[in-house]
Amino acid sequence: MTLPINSSPYTARQARLAETLQAAQFEAAVLNPGPSLVYLTGMHFHLSERPVVMIFKPGATPCIVLPELESAKLKHLDYPIQAFPYTEAVEDWAAAFGRAAQAAGIDGKTVGVEPRGLRFLEFQFLTNAAPKANFVSAEANLAALRMYKDAGEIVAMRKAAEIAQRALQATLPVVQIGVSEREIASELTLQLLRAGSDPELPFAPIISGGPNSANPHATPSKRVLQAGDLLVIDWGASYQGYFSDITRTFAIGEIEPEYVRIGQLVLEANLAGRRIAGPGIEAGQVDQAARAVIEQGGYGPYFFHRTGHGLGMEGHEEPYIRSGSTVLLKPGMTFTIEPGIYLPDRNGVRIEDDVVITEDGSESLTNLHRQVTRLV
Amino acid sequence: MTLPINSSPYTARQARLAETLQAAQFEAAVLNPGPSLVYLTGMHFHLSERPVVMIFKPGATPCIVLPELESAKLKHLDYPIQAFPYTEAVEDWAAAFGRAAQAAGIDGKTVGVEPRGLRFLEFQFLTNAAPKANFVSAEANLAALRMYKDAGEIVAMRKAAEIAQRALQATLPVVQIGVSEREIASELTLQLLRAGSDPELPFAPIISGGPNSANPHATPSKRVLQAGDLLVIDWGASYQGYFSDITRTFAIGEIEPEYVRIGQLVLEANLAGRRIAGPGIEAGQVDQAARAVIEQGGYGPYFFHRTGHGLGMEGHEEPYIRSGSTVLLKPGMTFTIEPGIYLPDRNGVRIEDDVVITEDGSESLTNLHRQVTRLV
Repeated sequence: MTLPINSSPYTARQARLAETLQAAQFEAAVLNPGPSLVYLTGMHFHLSERPVVMIFKPGATPCIVLPELESAKLKHLDYPIQAFPYTEAVEDWAAAFGRAAQAAGIDGKTVGVEPRGLRFLEFQFLTNAAPKANFVSAEANLAALRMYKDAGEIVAMRKAAEIAQRALQATLPVVQIGVSEREIASELTLQLLRAGSDPELPFAPIISGGPNSANPHATPSKRVLQAGDLLVIDWGASYQGYFSDITRTFAIGEIEPEYVRIGQLVLEANLAGRRIAGPGIEAGQVDQAARAVIEQGGYGPYFFHRTGHGLGMEGHEEPYIRSGSTVLLKPGMTFTIEPGIYLPDRNGVRIEDDVVITEDGSESLTNLHRQVTRLV
Repeated sequence: MTLPINSSPYTARQARLAETLQAAQFEAAVLNPGPSLVYLTGMHFHLSERPVVMIFKPGATPCIVLPELESAKLKHLDYPIQAFPYTEAVEDWAAAFGRAAQAAGIDGKTVGVEPRGLRFLEFQFLTNAAPKANFVSAEANLAALRMYKDAGEIVAMRKAAEIAQRALQATLPVVQIGVSEREIASELTLQLLRAGSDPELPFAPIISGGPNSANPHATPSKRVLQAGDLLVIDWGASYQGYFSDITRTFAIGEIEPEYVRIGQLVLEANLAGRRIAGPGIEAGQVDQAARAVIEQGGYGPYFFHRTGHGLGMEGHEEPYIRSGSTVLLKPGMTFTIEPGIYLPDRNGVRIEDDVVITEDGSESLTNLHRQVTRLV
């Protein structure tokens, strides 16, 4: 059964944005291309040397500054928009920004922006167009809009998880002693596409074996798998713009008893995090539940990152599952639980699931066998 | 034969950066993760909610602010670096920026940044850490460093072109009436990886048929190919971080005589651009040579973008091949030549090659048959 993704949610989402902005005393928000713009408008633009911004002001028609050659994208929108296209002549661009800023009346106003999205490029054009505007982070406000997934969004995330899991299963046969991390990464990428992922993956798969597995952000290298390695695979798929992000760890041949032990501890930490996650629980309590298992096992210093992060149209978004966070979990929130233990220059383990908070607890969208198992 | 990519060019590149900054009266430059940072340091970081910046000050050891959990990347560098790691506690991040800014002594100084790379996120931390610094665009200066490719870089680009061409040839058998743009895009992506592209493609392939081909920036849709369509395929591969970017146009079944005519005109425009490209020629003259062919053919208004853009570690970089540009082409510069004609709501043609300026002219790194040929 395929549930329909909301067919045209943009007008409603823009109305919710207006409410959010007004409640937080922002007089407008400016977005450049990225997930929030897609969420609010359905429009995809490349982030290029040609700036694109959209100005949302409660009660007014949104204004967009964009290259003339992208204007075709405005044709079939089901909401009103005021367009300020510019030509290929760079010296015209400032004037387009000026006209848009004037039409939206943002000069002298408090304007929300996304610190991780807006670039110095757009920021310069904006400050020149509205020199008295006060640009401040509206990250939390925009994140809050996107943090509660509706039924259609959960369907897409579930599908992204299924695609990723099928792709891994199709990849495992190539995992052999003597095969390089890069070869496994290529095969997994190919299998992700074959299984139905959107062409733009949420991130390039992390394949790290032996000492490289002790680096949580390793890039696949030419190192080949050896007997005694742990192999960490961290990968995800994208489906209709929604992501999955999973990690599983495998044993290559016979591994040291200590590696068996840390594998077991991380599995228990993952389970503890998933068990406690539910409505009304603080994000920090999930981190604490997972961390306590590893600390009590004596490996606290070797779990040196937070337990998880929100997941949706972005690989990392709200809510962050970190020590001390008092963010209350609520139904519709989606995030990873991914404890790990990393023994420097030796080996590492991480086990990561994607969970959604439900009315009475949480559900893992990912269900591939979690225990560290011997592959070769 | 495999020519070695420069094994450790980073010290030399950092020295050239220092010269460039001094010549342009910058007292320092700050970079966040991206191609310029890779070019100067060999270090890859994800652009995430955890800011990473590196401060280059002529005559001083470069300073890096980074998350503690990424510190392993600093271990095997063959140049000196001063690290300012921060923990997962967000409230500590500003202090790390503060210490780095103080060590580098950038407050009150003129500091170059990359407007398309630096985000509001890093910019806020930087302005708090160095409130009297004057952050200005050093885009042209950094672009100038990377604009002249050395022999090793050309080898990588040549390889990226070969991979892309092989991938297209392997994809063409699936191009049939009734097949959707998205299906072709998936197959081409898969073939790019199989042919040896790095897992992160320079961009998702553009597959646009019929009316969609009249939009130069179309996203692959569910529309299926029909007899009489033109089919524009714009794709590229990545090899060791260097890109190719090619476009070819095909006829699906019998096409209208006017489409044959615009196909021929675009081919002649592409050839005119490639013929004139050489050392000492202005970038604008290449644009003019290609554009004149299309204007004389009566389709000037339907070629509404510039003729090309630089190509290397970025999909779009210097030099831009646009009308009026007086940038003098010099050996080692690499860019696309990609004239097109787009008849709104009907069909479009684009033919794109990647060229390198040589001592006595230019060479196309791409050589796949260029004429619009009938596929089905």
